[in-house]
Amino acid sequence: MSSKNPPKQMSDEHNAFHAERRRARRDAAKGKGKSGGKTWPKRKQVDRQDTDTLYLYGLHTVRQAILNPARQKNRLYTTLNGLQRLELDANLLDSIEVEEKLPRELDALVGSEAVHQGVVLHAEPVATKPLEELAETNLVLLLDQVTDPHNVGAIMRSAVAMNAGAIITTSRYSPVESGVLAKSASGALDLIDHIEVRNLAETLEDLMKDDFTTIGLDSEEAIPFENVEGQKRIALVLGAEGKGLREKTRKTCSILARLDMPGEIKSLNVSNAAALSLYLSRQILQKA
Amino acid sequence: MSSKNPPKQMSDEHNAFHAERRRARRDAAKGKGKSGGKTWPKRKQVDRQDTDTLYLYGLHTVRQAILNPARQKNRLYTTLNGLQRLELDANLLDSIEVEEKLPRELDALVGSEAVHQGVVLHAEPVATKPLEELAETNLVLLLDQVTDPHNVGAIMRSAVAMNAGAIITTSRYSPVESGVLAKSASGALDLIDHIEVRNLAETLEDLMKDDFTTIGLDSEEAIPFENVEGQKRIALVLGAEGKGLREKTRKTCSILARLDMPGEIKSLNVSNAAALSLYLSRQILQKA
Repeated sequence: MSSKNPPKQMSDEHNAFHAERRRARRDAAKGKGKSGGKTWPKRKQVDRQDTDTLYLYGLHTVRQAILNPARQKNRLYTTLNGLQRLELDANLLDSIEVEEKLPRELDALVGSEAVHQGVVLHAEPVATKPLEELAETNLVLLLDQVTDPHNVGAIMRSAVAMNAGAIITTSRYSPVESGVLAKSASGALDLIDHIEVRNLAETLEDLMKDDFTTIGLDSEEAIPFENVEGQKRIALVLGAEGKGLREKTRKTCSILARLDMPGEIKSLNVSNAAALSLYLSRQILQKA
Repeated sequence: MSSKNPPKQMSDEHNAFHAERRRARRDAAKGKGKSGGKTWPKRKQVDRQDTDTLYLYGLHTVRQAILNPARQKNRLYTTLNGLQRLELDANLLDSIEVEEKLPRELDALVGSEAVHQGVVLHAEPVATKPLEELAETNLVLLLDQVTDPHNVGAIMRSAVAMNAGAIITTSRYSPVESGVLAKSASGALDLIDHIEVRNLAETLEDLMKDDFTTIGLDSEEAIPFENVEGQKRIALVLGAEGKGLREKTRKTCSILARLDMPGEIKSLNVSNAAALSLYLSRQILQKA
């Protein structure tokens, strides 16, 4: 060690905690919708204070947001080219304020790293739903404290592609709508119900009463996912990168299943694991 | 349109092009290794001017980089806690300069968004290899101009997990080593050979002469991936998000295969598509 002043040591957990908080504040400043209510299960309100600067960008994302009747649209900032490429009926756009912008003005709105493709929509987050409003489906995906916006966005896209009926998260550690999440979701944010629950284990029990087999993706005490069969309704549960499922979640699932990897790295990125386990779940449901 | 001054219109392509260039410059400033050579196939040199500020961070990433004999390590910046959590033999660390840092000093090095977990390694990029040095394997992954660091990192991780023998990219539009790519790869950057070639179509032909079936992931004129069978060696080819495979690549592949999605979104994020098609390739190889 070449440090001359032995430092007052702070733990990495502490460090990671503060990095997380800084990120959350930045996200909030950029525009997001964190649900603030605490009652269950009828909570549908979102905290407007945090959400009045949600900017959605990118052609797929903005198109689906405008097409979503449950989404409140405030104003569309667009280049002429962007507007044409949205390929939306004029009457749909009549109900939205549209303002023409230069590409660099859109850069200034959402940051130059954001690939906005000429369209930025100032909108409100869509209110989350309670479990009671789960639509008829044989496949749902539950996230146990997965919040990284790139991953959650890609997971939402895969969930829509695999025709899952809803994404279910807890109110605490819930992913929040943001430009980055929406862009990663490539329109999926407005194509799938987001159900928010207070207690994940209780929700798993509710789903089991409704004939869902709850399958937690895990590595310990798990069976190979390929050995799972015969299910008619599947509720797939994924934990966060690194941390995995919480103990209470693990204990509540009907089945713990693992994705065996032959190589030197034994686990996939969480959105890749989601895509693969959703695919395998679809296969199980098709065969049953 | 409420704009009062009809603007001199710039195309979104123009805009996207410049956003890409800005990103590239930022990446370069943050530290990356862009291969600069132009001769083929013996090109192994990397341009040191661009690469002298490559900072790798995160426990998995730094551990694998230190364990990789082909990686030149300059200096390890670490908290005491980070050093312990690396769990590396003392004799391995003897050959590296180690400097103790506070978490916030590491934040300053790599940015506060980077989850460094108390370890930052200043290192040189690993030289890419020519096709002639492809190790014995029955599975390789070719990227046709996929460069987004989050996606390429996650793809490398999946490629290692699925025991692919190498990632093959073109010299132009090659993904470049960066902190973000390495962190997304979670150690995979130092666990898989990166082969760089000048011409992807010629490389596909070379691989076919070597008994590889070249399977391009595509949507048009493609057969369902589930219908592919009997291959003993697979070279899987993926195109960039949105653009897909280039025409010349499409025409050269022995098989074009598609991943059918039942839902309203018909395509997966490119790293998710990579994970799923690598998995299906492994299944095909196992059955053959």
